[in-house]
Amino acid sequence: MPPTKLSDQEIKAGIAQLSSGWSMVNAKLHKSFKFGDFVEAFGFMTKVAIVSEKLDHHPELFNVYNRVTIDLTTHDASGISSLDLELAKRIDAL
Amino acid sequence: MPPTKLSDQEIKAGIAQLSSGWSMVNAKLHKSFKFGDFVEAFGFMTKVAIVSEKLDHHPELFNVYNRVTIDLTTHDASGISSLDLELAKRIDAL
Amino acid sequence: MPPTKLSDQEIKAGIAQLSSGWSMVNAKLHKSFKFGDFVEAFGFMTKVAIVSEKLDHHPELFNVYNRVTIDLTTHDASGISSLDLELAKRIDAL
Amino acid sequence: MPPTKLSDQEIKAGIAQLSSGWSMVNAKLHKSFKFGDFVEAFGFMTKVAIVSEKLDHHPELFNVYNRVTIDLTTHDASGISSLDLELAKRIDAL
Repeated sequence: MPPTKLSDQEIKAGIAQLSSGWSMVNAKLHKSFKFGDFVEAFGFMTKVAIVSEKLDHHPELFNVYNRVTIDLTTHDASGISSLDLELAKRIDAL
Repeated sequence: MPPTKLSDQEIKAGIAQLSSGWSMVNAKLHKSFKFGDFVEAFGFMTKVAIVSEKLDHHPELFNVYNRVTIDLTTHDASGISSLDLELAKRIDAL
Repeated sequence: MPPTKLSDQEIKAGIAQLSSGWSMVNAKLHKSFKFGDFVEAFGFMTKVAIVSEKLDHHPELFNVYNRVTIDLTTHDASGISSLDLELAKRIDAL
Repeated sequence: MPPTKLSDQEIKAGIAQLSSGWSMVNAKLHKSFKFGDFVEAFGFMTKVAIVSEKLDHHPELFNVYNRVTIDLTTHDASGISSLDLELAKRIDAL
């Protein structure tokens, strides 16, 4: 069964259970991270990469120097699905 | 001595010496890469990360699944400098 | 069902289906890799890391400069299991 | 000027300035690390990889699941040199 698009209310309820900083931006689940330097930022991205591939669900990752931006959406659902909330939760656990 | 902004002509001459696919987009040195899957794409990003930190010059990196986009600019020069051409050359060598 | 230890004959048959270079060393499925430099070697290790975590089966990884050594064994089986052959196959596919 | 081999006394003095856990094992500067899981361990290894390449001095890295072992020596000096202490210091800073 493919993941289905969540309602705005379901997304809000999901965000409420994540770490602070997650929000809905351009219809994607979004968070920006700032690290001490590039090495720290890329160490984090590597961990995100590993958990993403394990979940078979991949984020939009943007990085410049010590900043990392993550945007989550599910193409097959044309919106945010429970997979995005699950990936956000696993990223929070890193 | 900080790197200085290159002229459009210098940038064109520099791009001519890089692999195909590099161009100037939004005043940044830009190339898009497409890989077989996420694992390959992230392996490439890790190599880009290592050579960037070694050069002390970091790209704007964007990734989603098997696609990687690199944009190079030099903040201190308010434009594209020789450092960007050097990083592009090292990325080409990967 | 936990993976079970394969017989020497099963291991030999499995190795025959892998790329050249895999062999049984100290009761582990072993292969040594040599790359052009450290950056290439670590890019490869990153890809191995991602596929390992996805399979939930992790190699013994050794790296110095451009060399990477991989040893595979299954602790729960006290020997080489089908999981090790599967991971070797996925590493071959990188 | 190539790095020169440090005396045992110089090595001891150097180790005294590092984080706890570093010691001389088999004539190499050695430390073992244990992480919560593989993802954390490999995130750390990636950071070590980046700082090593930047210093142009590479460790012997061993990893299995959540454990990482680092051994430092300088081939050109046939022993432990100031480069190894410098790399250990940068690993401590991660």
